[in-house]
Amino acid sequence: MHFKIRAAAKEDCREISRMIKELAVFEKMSDQVKISHEDNKTSVVFLVTCVFVVLPGFTLVGYALYFYTYSTWTGRSVYLEDLYVMPEFRGNGIGKGLMSKVAEVGKKKQCVRLQLSVLDWNTPARDFYATKGAQDLTAGEGWHFIRFDGQSLDDLVNEAPED
Amino acid sequence: MHFKIRAAAKEDCREISRMIKELAVFEKMSDQVKISHEDNKTSVVFLVTCVFVVLPGFTLVGYALYFYTYSTWTGRSVYLEDLYVMPEFRGNGIGKGLMSKVAEVGKKKQCVRLQLSVLDWNTPARDFYATKGAQDLTAGEGWHFIRFDGQSLDDLVNEAPED
Repeated sequence: MHFKIRAAAKEDCREISRMIKELAVFEKMSDQVKISHEDNKTSVVFLVTCVFVVLPGFTLVGYALYFYTYSTWTGRSVYLEDLYVMPEFRGNGIGKGLMSKVAEVGKKKQCVRLQLSVLDWNTPARDFYATKGAQDLTAGEGWHFIRFDGQSLDDLVNEAPED
Repeated sequence: MHFKIRAAAKEDCREISRMIKELAVFEKMSDQVKISHEDNKTSVVFLVTCVFVVLPGFTLVGYALYFYTYSTWTGRSVYLEDLYVMPEFRGNGIGKGLMSKVAEVGKKKQCVRLQLSVLDWNTPARDFYATKGAQDLTAGEGWHFIRFDGQSLDDLVNEAPED
């Protein structure tokens, strides 16, 4: 399948919002999508570093959303927050192409790592990353994700010492 | 114990570099520290959003290093990359103060989450986060950390489709 990867533009935001929701459904977490299309539209263009979309014909069938993070041990990293290809277009190397493109952009910015997170039941994705030589840091080193939000975040804020 | 939290300045970078190495030793991963003091110095001031340090007397005894990330489901988040208090000053609420301060800064920037990662054997830290109401997303939802670096990152880059 012939496809092209390019940077996202403001005009793509409606299609990206559609795919953000589709990804959440795939991850069985659609109840966790709290953001509006308008919020993502603003952020995709101005806040998040860049997004790639794919166009066989004239349809956007996948996207990769990423930003930069920093490790005090190794330096700059690129973080792949979302990677999505519509089900009917999977198995054509599109996901792999998106991921490689993000790696390439990161490398140009001196990033020494590409990181992402994956759900344990998503075996096809985990196997794919492993085949490509990625390390599973949760399985290998025991790293866990921790999140404060809602009340627990408010509680922290309220306990902040004065300046 | 009386302590104060303030934003880090360029002059603090040597002490921060010292504590970055101490944190790596505590995490039993000091072999993973590849970055130079000079690199961190540049980044702490210009790349990473901000760092807080703590001063009882005139010594820096802890730091919190953070940056902003983005979720397409909920919006802006603050990510606490490093949280460290020197062993002899632990148990005085300094770590908690640093974390709350980062939460406060994040909240002012409209962040709806504060996230971090922790090693599974670091039971005191995990218990502390749990007491404060944090969710363990690895235990609860099954999220794993994945990393490409070195050869696996180079391989991805080399396979990137042309523009």
